Amino acid sequence: MDQITITERDTDISLGSPDLRTVDCDPDFWYPVAWSHELKTGKTIGVRYAGLPIALVRPTEGAVFALEDRCAHRQVPLSKGTVKGQAVQCCYHGWAYGRSGRCIDVPYLGKGKLPNGVRTYPCREAGGLIFVFPGDPALADSVPMPRLAHVGDPEYRTRQFGPRVACHYTFMHENLMDMNHQFLHRRQMGQIRARFLGQDRGENFVEARYSFGRTDTRQPLAEALIFGRHRDLKGKEQPVEEVVTVRTEYPYQTLNIVDKDGDLMMDLWVAYVPQSADQRTSRAFGLLSVRRPKIPFLIDLIWPALAVFTNRIFEEDREVVELEQQAWDAQGGDRNREVFPVVNHLRALLSRCGQPGQPAQR
Amino acid sequence: MDQITITERDTDISLGSPDLRTVDCDPDFWYPVAWSHELKTGKTIGVRYAGLPIALVRPTEGAVFALEDRCAHRQVPLSKGTVKGQAVQCCYHGWAYGRSGRCIDVPYLGKGKLPNGVRTYPCREAGGLIFVFPGDPALADSVPMPRLAHVGDPEYRTRQFGPRVACHYTFMHENLMDMNHQFLHRRQMGQIRARFLGQDRGENFVEARYSFGRTDTRQPLAEALIFGRHRDLKGKEQPVEEVVTVRTEYPYQTLNIVDKDGDLMMDLWVAYVPQSADQRTSRAFGLLSVRRPKIPFLIDLIWPALAVFTNRIFEEDREVVELEQQAWDAQGGDRNREVFPVVNHLRALLSRCGQPGQPAQR
Amino acid sequence: MDQITITERDTDISLGSPDLRTVDCDPDFWYPVAWSHELKTGKTIGVRYAGLPIALVRPTEGAVFALEDRCAHRQVPLSKGTVKGQAVQCCYHGWAYGRSGRCIDVPYLGKGKLPNGVRTYPCREAGGLIFVFPGDPALADSVPMPRLAHVGDPEYRTRQFGPRVACHYTFMHENLMDMNHQFLHRRQMGQIRARFLGQDRGENFVEARYSFGRTDTRQPLAEALIFGRHRDLKGKEQPVEEVVTVRTEYPYQTLNIVDKDGDLMMDLWVAYVPQSADQRTSRAFGLLSVRRPKIPFLIDLIWPALAVFTNRIFEEDREVVELEQQAWDAQGGDRNREVFPVVNHLRALLSRCGQPGQPAQR
Repeated sequence: MDQITITERDTDISLGSPDLRTVDCDPDFWYPVAWSHELKTGKTIGVRYAGLPIALVRPTEGAVFALEDRCAHRQVPLSKGTVKGQAVQCCYHGWAYGRSGRCIDVPYLGKGKLPNGVRTYPCREAGGLIFVFPGDPALADSVPMPRLAHVGDPEYRTRQFGPRVACHYTFMHENLMDMNHQFLHRRQMGQIRARFLGQDRGENFVEARYSFGRTDTRQPLAEALIFGRHRDLKGKEQPVEEVVTVRTEYPYQTLNIVDKDGDLMMDLWVAYVPQSADQRTSRAFGLLSVRRPKIPFLIDLIWPALAVFTNRIFEEDREVVELEQQAWDAQGGDRNREVFPVVNHLRALLSRCGQPGQPAQR
Repeated sequence: MDQITITERDTDISLGSPDLRTVDCDPDFWYPVAWSHELKTGKTIGVRYAGLPIALVRPTEGAVFALEDRCAHRQVPLSKGTVKGQAVQCCYHGWAYGRSGRCIDVPYLGKGKLPNGVRTYPCREAGGLIFVFPGDPALADSVPMPRLAHVGDPEYRTRQFGPRVACHYTFMHENLMDMNHQFLHRRQMGQIRARFLGQDRGENFVEARYSFGRTDTRQPLAEALIFGRHRDLKGKEQPVEEVVTVRTEYPYQTLNIVDKDGDLMMDLWVAYVPQSADQRTSRAFGLLSVRRPKIPFLIDLIWPALAVFTNRIFEEDREVVELEQQAWDAQGGDRNREVFPVVNHLRALLSRCGQPGQPAQR
Repeated sequence: MDQITITERDTDISLGSPDLRTVDCDPDFWYPVAWSHELKTGKTIGVRYAGLPIALVRPTEGAVFALEDRCAHRQVPLSKGTVKGQAVQCCYHGWAYGRSGRCIDVPYLGKGKLPNGVRTYPCREAGGLIFVFPGDPALADSVPMPRLAHVGDPEYRTRQFGPRVACHYTFMHENLMDMNHQFLHRRQMGQIRARFLGQDRGENFVEARYSFGRTDTRQPLAEALIFGRHRDLKGKEQPVEEVVTVRTEYPYQTLNIVDKDGDLMMDLWVAYVPQSADQRTSRAFGLLSVRRPKIPFLIDLIWPALAVFTNRIFEEDREVVELEQQAWDAQGGDRNREVFPVVNHLRALLSRCGQPGQPAQR
């Protein structure tokens, strides 16, 4: 079926309490906060998770570690300081902190009575990303790291993208989940029309499957290179038989495309990481793995076009989700009237898995 | 008389409650929100009235119409969408709305159960301006459109101007009404000194009449071209005999200049339209009709100089009214000590005809 | 001793109530608000003290005077107006005010009933600075003006500097008082290490004395020119024997350097003047007097290098104190854990001599 049928039960989900845009991310997960290449050896950089300032430190030896990005002395960011061996030294009066967060030196103070140190965050590096666990550190080891698309798989080439978006993370999840928003990308993706195939859901996930129909025979080049040509020899329209699966498995989101032979053509993994304390700004960290074509080097040839294509798509998405956030700000609350059951299930999932935001912080 | 005499009764009016700068415009009038030339056929633009987002749509056939500028689905501005025949289609998921505001299509949904639509605003086009009626739609037909200077009259040439000003609309009314502020324009208008001739007032208007005396014989060119030369053959100072009438007939303001032969030389109509919800920013829409001189083409010759002249005057006015607003913001209220009775009557009029602002919106 | 010993009594001082960053400056002192050269004869400029707008007026004859920078009529800044003889005339309707603050002319009003005027501030000019007394005017004459480094002394050359800093004035006092922050300037000042010599304190002052030890033999040129060369003939490290004294004598701060012969080499005087009402932005006015070397013209030769050197030092200080303010803003309060007794005594002094900020203004 091309048309969605709404049942009373489906739409009832959408208008709930609390307001979805005040639901914070559950911090008891591994969240990417920087790309590995952003942090050179012997350096420190400052990043954020939901308003928490975090100093990432890559010592000259050993793994990256993460500290609260405020010196215990006068709260100046440690990420403005310098790395010396295994420690980071505050730029202001030179207080030094090790991997454990303990203050190990105050240059002008006797060692006998060193002040307390700073908070640490469990920290891991994988797939070109640096992750922290912002919640309860005791849970970190028991919470699995996500599977990161096909990073490192020689059959695929993976593109990184990581824009900042001035909206609540939930808008991003809904944007990708509802493929009917292809209308937004009509200039980039021709007259593709998503056809909803079905959905699936569980305790911690919602999944929607689509195929793409074409209402016009013109097809942009980059799209053709990714999705394949969609015309027979006589130039007639032909149904596209790839299946697109979008899945939010809390708190991450994936999109993959399987072609008619069952081969995985594209695999996208993305995390939306709250930046400000009110979680109304986000930084996306995305990994887009594209299967290498049989002809060697073809992937390298199309790679720049793919970058342009995905950037344009993303710019359109960014504009629209930021407009949604602006409407929320102006109206002082969520007035969404969602009619698509999958999105309503997604909203319920995000609401259920998140935690209430702190009104005091707003 | 050159000097104003203050009576106790006059000054008593000025310090009232509520604070004049918290009085909102009465929405039950026709307000201009855009110039006709800003909205091309088959396009839509977004405008504001006092924080209300309004999408103006010029369909390929038929008159301009005005909708609430938020899609019923996810509150994204409809003015970011596309016009298709008689309807506007949201940029995001393609929901379509007609002139009535009803949702007439959701591309991926059965027609049987379309969602509700969006609010509409009565909308008219006149004199190169697009007007909406932001208040009670039931009143729109009974409220007359304003007379728009001498737009369309071949005896006059009309200039449009429409700056945005970061202040409450009431500061704009008071600025023009009090011609003693010619001091502000001393560099542009020579040593003109306004002489108050008299006033008139009624239920919905206040009017002040002035003549202009000159304290200096130098006269800028552009002013001479508009107001005429003010010197006799021997170069002596001579009284200027034009009469300038400034009138606020709620909610509009006019200024006209009649020369010594009783001919209307200049006719200005202006509306100050609140932009933000707190009404502390405004957009002016002004029409300045200047009588064509007897010598053909002379008006075309002086037109650019007139534009420069009026722009400079307006820039000075803008700076000073914005400084007034900034003082109000810093002091948290109106500390004006007005001594000019006409202005106090104007303040009473604006307070009486407006409506209390919503403190919650501030 | 090179290491500071902390006693329980010392550290107890630091965590007090009220929060030091909400303590306002005591207005009953003479504060600089502008450099003399900023205000030309026959002109007026607008300055601030803790949110109070002040118009400084330099009439064509007589001393500078200071008025509340708001016309009594419509609160437009008088500093936007023009100076005419001994008076300043508002730019808008031409109301004129004399040195006494009285309104002496409203051009379009009879002289019989002039409105009240505006507030005045006691005002003095000294050492190239214009001072006002923002507090109780009755106290102004009894409160002495500060000694301004060695301005006007032919033995010294004096440099003016006056940056704006986005932080509470107390951060500035603490920055200079704690010479252990030389670590911040390690790129500019080599490996200088401050050695705490002792402290002194009284009802209205705190003073710390330091000498400088060097941990590295490289010494930047500009530093050498100011502090003298620190190596013996064989290139060995040698203790520096200058004594640096930093003193906050409320509300001003000084730093002077005396060489081993007891000569005063450098004398710095600085005032941190709150700009905004919440006192979280400041403008520093500093006078840095450097003793002229015996060789004539040498001071002129090193002067540009000294400017570059002090500007760089100050830029580093500015960055770090603004980061401290940002941390305070983000954390909603003072979390400083100060370990250096002198700084804790300074904090107590600033808290004792200041006055509670108005929560309503924040």
